[in-house]
Order: sequence, then C-alpha cells, then structure tokens
Amino acid sequence: MLGKRRRLALLAEARFTPFEAKTAVCVLRYRPEHVAAVIDSTRAGRTAGECAGVGGAIPVVADVAAAAAAGADSLAIGIAPQGGGLPEAWRAQVRESLERGWDVLSGLHVFLGDDPELAAAAARHGARIFDLRRPPTRRTVAAARAAELEALVVLTVGSDCNVGKMTAQLQIVGGLNKKGVRTRFAATGQTGILIEGWGIAVDAVVSDFVNGAAEQLVLEGSKDADIVMVEGQGSINHPGYSAVTLGLLHGSCPDAMILCHQATREYIGDYREASWLKIPPLSQYVRWYEAIGSAVHPTRVIGVCLNTYDMTEAQARSACEQAARETGLPATDPVRFDQTPLIEAILQARAASPKLRQSASPAVSPKWCP
Amino acid sequence: MLGKRRRLALLAEARFTPFEAKTAVCVLRYRPEHVAAVIDSTRAGRTAGECAGVGGAIPVVADVAAAAAAGADSLAIGIAPQGGGLPEAWRAQVRESLERGWDVLSGLHVFLGDDPELAAAAARHGARIFDLRRPPTRRTVAAARAAELEALVVLTVGSDCNVGKMTAQLQIVGGLNKKGVRTRFAATGQTGILIEGWGIAVDAVVSDFVNGAAEQLVLEGSKDADIVMVEGQGSINHPGYSAVTLGLLHGSCPDAMILCHQATREYIGDYREASWLKIPPLSQYVRWYEAIGSAVHPTRVIGVCLNTYDMTEAQARSACEQAARETGLPATDPVRFDQTPLIEAILQARAASPKLRQSASPAVSPKWCP
Repeated sequence: MLGKRRRLALLAEARFTPFEAKTAVCVLRYRPEHVAAVIDSTRAGRTAGECAGVGGAIPVVADVAAAAAAGADSLAIGIAPQGGGLPEAWRAQVRESLERGWDVLSGLHVFLGDDPELAAAAARHGARIFDLRRPPTRRTVAAARAAELEALVVLTVGSDCNVGKMTAQLQIVGGLNKKGVRTRFAATGQTGILIEGWGIAVDAVVSDFVNGAAEQLVLEGSKDADIVMVEGQGSINHPGYSAVTLGLLHGSCPDAMILCHQATREYIGDYREASWLKIPPLSQYVRWYEAIGSAVHPTRVIGVCLNTYDMTEAQARSACEQAARETGLPATDPVRFDQTPLIEAILQARAASPKLRQSASPAVSPKWCP
Repeated sequence: MLGKRRRLALLAEARFTPFEAKTAVCVLRYRPEHVAAVIDSTRAGRTAGECAGVGGAIPVVADVAAAAAAGADSLAIGIAPQGGGLPEAWRAQVRESLERGWDVLSGLHVFLGDDPELAAAAARHGARIFDLRRPPTRRTVAAARAAELEALVVLTVGSDCNVGKMTAQLQIVGGLNKKGVRTRFAATGQTGILIEGWGIAVDAVVSDFVNGAAEQLVLEGSKDADIVMVEGQGSINHPGYSAVTLGLLHGSCPDAMILCHQATREYIGDYREASWLKIPPLSQYVRWYEAIGSAVHPTRVIGVCLNTYDMTEAQARSACEQAARETGLPATDPVRFDQTPLIEAILQARAASPKLRQSASPAVSPKWCP
C-alpha cells in the first residue's frame, strides 16, 4: 500500500458509519489485513464489524495512543467530506500521528502536505504525508488516445455519487482475475488509490485536464492487461459533479459500461442533507450514457450493478429482476449475490470487441472517427 | 479593466494571427481604446488591422521598449496556448514590463504570480501580476441554485472550441443593452474576463468544483440583470474539454442555449494540429445539449450562431439559411449580419419563461425537480 506493508489506524472520529466513513469502510472490506484499529471515540470499545458491517473483530478505539497500542504504524483519514477540508477536531490526531513518526495517508481535497504545521511536524519526526488526491504534475489534454488500445476498457457509471461503483468493480475485478483474465483496476478516487496503491483522483484535477488524466490512467492501466476496469465517479445528471463524470467518460473511451445504482435511492444526493433531482428510470441513464459516450467513442451499457445493502434478500432479488427486465441487461448485486452475470457480460464484450478484429487487420482508420 | 483604465501592450510574439492570438484579437475587437500596441517582432511595422482584421491603425511593434514609446503602461499576454505555459521566449518581455513598473495581465494556465523570478521583479518595481485564470479561493459544490433565479440564463454552446462563442455573445449582449434590456455578460475564460473586468476561468477550477464555479458566476451575474449571458466553453463531444462544457451547462442551469458553429469546420480540433472527430449535423448537437442539459434543468436551444469569417457573403448567407432549415431555429452570423433574429429569440424566451410566471406565484416546488 503505497510502497510498504502497513498497519493502519483509520481515523473516522464520530463518523464511523457505512455512509459517512466510505473510505474507512472500503479499506476494511478489501484490505482488512492492513488495518490495526479504527479511531472513533464515540464508538470506542466496539468492533469494526459491529459498527460498519465490515472488518470483523478489528477494534474501534478512542485515540491515536490506543491505536498505537493496537499495533498501528500509520494513519489514514477515513472520510471524504463534501468540500474536502480537515475537520478541525481531527487536526490534533493527525499531528500526534506525525509526531509518532507515522506516515499519514489522506484523500482530502485540502492537501495536508501543504499545511505548514503538519508539514513541519512530518519533517521534524521523519514522517511522510501522502496526499492521495494530489494531481499529477504533468497535465495533458485528452485526444481520444484511449480509444486506440487493444485492451477492453470498462467504465462504471452511476445514477448518483456513492451508490457503490467502486465496490461493485473491485468485486468484478477479483472475479475476473480469479478466472485468469488479466484485469487491472484503474482507481480514480482516493479510496481506490489507497486500496490499489496507484491511480489518479480525477476530481482533484483542474477541469481542462480531467479528460486527459482519465486518458493517462487508462494508458497506464492497459499495460499487461486485457481488461481495464475504470472506476467511475458521480453521475451524468449530478448538478455538482457531472463535469468529473463526463471527463472520465470521454477521457477513458470505454468500450463498455456497467450502470450502478442503489436500488432504494429515489433522489440524487439523498445520502447527504440535500435531496436534489428525482432519479429517472435506469433505461434513461442507459440512453444518456450511450448517447453522450458514443459522441467520442462507440460504447454501450452491458450490465447493471445494484447496491441492495438496505433491502431484504427477497426485495433485492426482485429489484435485480426488475432492473434486468427494464433494461434488457444482466443485473445483479455483485457484493451480495453471484457476480457471474456481469463477468460473463464483460467476457462477451471482450470476445465481440472490434478491437480484437482491428489488431488482426490494423489497416482500418481509427474507429472513433465516424 | 481590472480596476483602472489602461493602455495595453498585447504580447503576441510571432503569433499575431486571428486564430493563434485569440485573446489579443478579442481585446482589439471589443476594447480597442485600451490598446496602445501589439508586440510581434515578426510583423513589426504593420498595423493590427492589416495583421488580424481588427484594431485598425494600432501599431504592431518589435518589443516592450517600442510599445512604451507607443504609450503602453501595462502588458497583457495575447495568447492562450494549449497546455497553458509561458513560451520561454516571452519571459524576457514579461520581466522587462514588470521592471518598467507595468502591471501584467495573464490568462495562462501557469500562474505568473507563482513564478519566483517574475514575482520578485513585480515586488521590486511596484508592479502587479493579474493571473486572470486563478480560481476563486472559495470552492463550492453546485446544487442547481442557478435554476432558482428570476433572470433568464442563456448559455452559448458549441460544436468545438474556438468557434466564436464569446464573440457572438458580446455582440448579442451589446445589442440587448442597446435595446434597454438589462443584460450582463458572465465571462468564463481569460479573454472575457480581460474584456469585462470580472468572471471566473472555469477551465482552471478543480473539476469537483467546476459546476459550482459556474453556479457562483450566474448568481453574481444575475444581480441587477434580467438576462445573464453565460460564456460557453468547449463542446459536449470534445475529447479533451467536454468536462468543462458539461460543468458549465449543469452549473449555470441555462433556460435557453445558443448553438455556435464555425460553418466551414468539419472536424473537432481542426484549428490546431490534430483533427479529431467529425463534427455531426447541428441537429445532433441540439439533441445532445437539450437532453443532457435538461437532465438537471429544463432547457432548449433557441438559435444558431454561425461564424462565417472565411466565407464569401453569398456562401455565408446560404450557410445561415441551411442551418435555419436544418434546425428549425433562427440562424445568423451576428458579427457579419444583423443580430436581430437571435435577440428576438432571447426576448421571446424571456417573455415565455416559466420563471416570470413562478415569481408571480411563488408557491410551486423547484421546477428543476421533476
């Protein structure tokens, strides 16, 4: 994880719930072997499993000292608050971690390495600050170069933020690699970067270069891979974040998309204080994403991922059936149920890809140029 | 212009042509009274009018000293190169300007104020560096607040970058204000900011906040105005810049859009070295922009602006007629021909706006929430 094996303390003070501490929860789900403790003084004494449904017996503790006693050697910020700053109440814990010589891993929009007090503490104690969202210094303008790759590029797209795009994708990547298909996960957010150890937080890139960052990511991810699974962000109709969504879509030039939705969610943003637009039918999203994605590179939605965490099993199965009926596409919750329908859809897309035919007969003109 | 009346030297060394020095040309077109000279040693001795078709007798000179002799008291960078850096050959001219105590106005992506050598020169000589693209320090996430305004919001959208969106719009804003309609131009790029003296360069904003920057701009621009004309950027199918385009569209929540196109252009990007996608029919753009714009706030295209600078008059008239026929919308070149069709389309949209009806009966729920 970013250069070495770690025993992380995940800082989630007063917010260690599945929706408020998304980063912490994802690290617990996919890299539990790297977590020593979760810090949340309001929940100290319980286990991660009891609070968040993941992480099993990993202890929730009150502070950095208790996390050290539990074996931690690094601190990771476990939340991604809207606006992106460091809650002032957390500053002391970050400072104390640095004073212990611990590295601090942060996905906040505000870079901790640029904070004079924290940077000085790090320098004094030989600790490092990893700002996972810091954009690459090299800025490029995208030119649909990702469309030229032999690897099949699959992007997750969604009906909103925080519907489970990354989780769905990590499940599918695991499933494909188990089948022996060389698949890489291209992380585009701080949590994915923390889990994978590489990636670009596209939402932190200056907007003129966000398509370009997505392109660079896919060019890098396609090395030694037959399938690149690109982590999607936001939603094409999200009032606040649609720019990031479209930059990813046009920069990564996916051949196929998987549409992600939280089955019970009715309004965009209703996991936060504001409920905005009503979420339209999934078939509307399929039309939007295919139309606007294909404006740069031909692409289609090949499957639907439902997040059914808050439904009974019967409700969840019924929601999957309904989504499949509505869209005519395979639909499942790959965390709860079998991932096979989505894995098969991806393998079929790979087998049918004009890219494979193109590499056999390379004389054709770029296929994204109609 | 940014706080005081100026006599600008426009730096366009070796690039003083209409397409390479877009910023210089626009300032010459709309603020010629603020320009003392253009610097381009390869064209020194000619006039701005001879080189670029605008600016009349304003002299083109070889260097900063000659511009000073022509009465200049400030330097403005007259280009916006892809990638956004300061050509190394221009550095000496910028430094010399600062050493003369001149303010330097720059729309480059790379901030001159952050350059240690130039910042030191400015401090030493009491000069100021205005980085027009520097984003606001306050970062906000958009929440479709612009949809709630009483003012009619009109956004220009395009088939590509650099097709004449801002120029078209400045013509229309001028025409509306002449008719006594309180209209404000909301600048979103460095050239518009230079001309208007305010605005936000949205393409320099971190992508998570680009929709929010557009929203802030419209909230500000609507003060004391009945119509806000928002400067569009890029194109919804531009491989490199579509993120900026969609951020503007969803952040500004336009009630109406004007579609801009350069009539002879066939490929996206063919004003640069790369020719990318073929530009589809205008009716396709109308469908794309209306579908994806209305996903957040109901909007429609109400007119077409053609840039016909490289056509004969007969060709230009024929192109306007064809665009009108294809789209069923008023179409004109507002620089070359009468702006009336577009001005009338805007006034009709204003008269028909549900916003006026809403302000009469404010009890309805937000109309962007279907």
